[in-house]
Amino acid sequence: MPIVIKPIRVYFSPDKNLHESLRNILGFYPTNISLYKLAFRHSSAAQIIKKGIKDSNERLEFLGDSVIGTVVADYLFKKFPFKDEGFLTKMRSKMVSRQQHNQLAVKLGLNTFIEANNDRFGSKPSSINGDAYEALIGAIYLDKGYKFAQQFILTRIVNVFIDMDEVETKEVDFKSKFIEWAQKEKKDFRFETLNDGAASIDKLFLLQLLIDNEVMGTAQHFSKKRAEQLVAEIACTALGI
Amino acid sequence: MPIVIKPIRVYFSPDKNLHESLRNILGFYPTNISLYKLAFRHSSAAQIIKKGIKDSNERLEFLGDSVIGTVVADYLFKKFPFKDEGFLTKMRSKMVSRQQHNQLAVKLGLNTFIEANNDRFGSKPSSINGDAYEALIGAIYLDKGYKFAQQFILTRIVNVFIDMDEVETKEVDFKSKFIEWAQKEKKDFRFETLNDGAASIDKLFLLQLLIDNEVMGTAQHFSKKRAEQLVAEIACTALGI
Repeated sequence: MPIVIKPIRVYFSPDKNLHESLRNILGFYPTNISLYKLAFRHSSAAQIIKKGIKDSNERLEFLGDSVIGTVVADYLFKKFPFKDEGFLTKMRSKMVSRQQHNQLAVKLGLNTFIEANNDRFGSKPSSINGDAYEALIGAIYLDKGYKFAQQFILTRIVNVFIDMDEVETKEVDFKSKFIEWAQKEKKDFRFETLNDGAASIDKLFLLQLLIDNEVMGTAQHFSKKRAEQLVAEIACTALGI
Repeated sequence: MPIVIKPIRVYFSPDKNLHESLRNILGFYPTNISLYKLAFRHSSAAQIIKKGIKDSNERLEFLGDSVIGTVVADYLFKKFPFKDEGFLTKMRSKMVSRQQHNQLAVKLGLNTFIEANNDRFGSKPSSINGDAYEALIGAIYLDKGYKFAQQFILTRIVNVFIDMDEVETKEVDFKSKFIEWAQKEKKDFRFETLNDGAASIDKLFLLQLLIDNEVMGTAQHFSKKRAEQLVAEIACTALGI
């Protein structure tokens, strides 16, 4: 790890501890610490600062999400000079998925910094972690600029936590993708087993997926898991998810 | 306009004319001219350079699209400090729409540079222009870096061609959005008038929208145009477009 000189302002900051903890995670001392505080504030713990606007991390998340997308697009563009844009798009969507960001946040230890009002949830949703990760990148971008944010994402995230071979071979998890969409759009859905294969010679599971009680598609496979993935893929394609 | 010193390499370049034309449009001389040539090459005019990959502008378009998204996100974040992320997202989607990019490309005069094989189309689709605009931004980003691309987008595009008040008040055009999706997903669809209102007292148009012969929704309004927008909005919401 390169030597990082502690800026004089840190010695006198009321947020000295936060400066030091962030230094350990990020590898640098923040300049504008208030951006980082904001990045860790979930909307459940935020105050209304003006009509219609809260001091939560949602705006930073919007910005950071976009910065991550561009940094990863650049990385893939250069890493795979002979792959077409379809491949690049697919790789990126796997690298920047909600699930991936939730995991990265925990691996970086961001979850310990998050301010959230847990009373508002039955259990703390894991997306809070991913949101904080995206907001943190937004904060770094505003605090230190694009190049710095890019450097951070590549050296501290991609090179450390992401196994590119695994990303390349990993199948898209259509079931998760579908469920995420359905929850966002507040749709009722269920996977219904029509035939569990026990009684038939071929032992094939036959499943159907219903959205708001309408059949979206059916699929069969020896494995129930694979059948679910197949029918979710049909739905994702039909719905343009 | 600031004075731009002509680099010596331009005097000796076989692409001297292209350098000068781009200087007029962009306000600077490209360093790596081959990136810009690639940005203007539509896939219909591209050669296969290796199995499965063409020297077309599609990879640059993937990159440039992302860069534009980030630059616009940053711009909106700073321009509207008291608006929430929902507002920022909506504004961005209006500023970076396909239609907007097609128009910007023509306003910048990029259409005159595009290499495309017109024999392959019945008529030249206007999306070719928007694609070239996005690819050009990708080329600038790779050639000159993020800050430079950002500067270009803000001073030569946003400040010159985009009327932010108009963007803010403009309704989302759900019909175009829906048609774009349907064409991409190769779905058959039609807007069907069930009642043109002529015979009824209330003079309301009653329309339905069908996708692959299935009714997606119905809507009514005094204006046929508004009824189409309404039913397209229903479809966009249901399909998560």
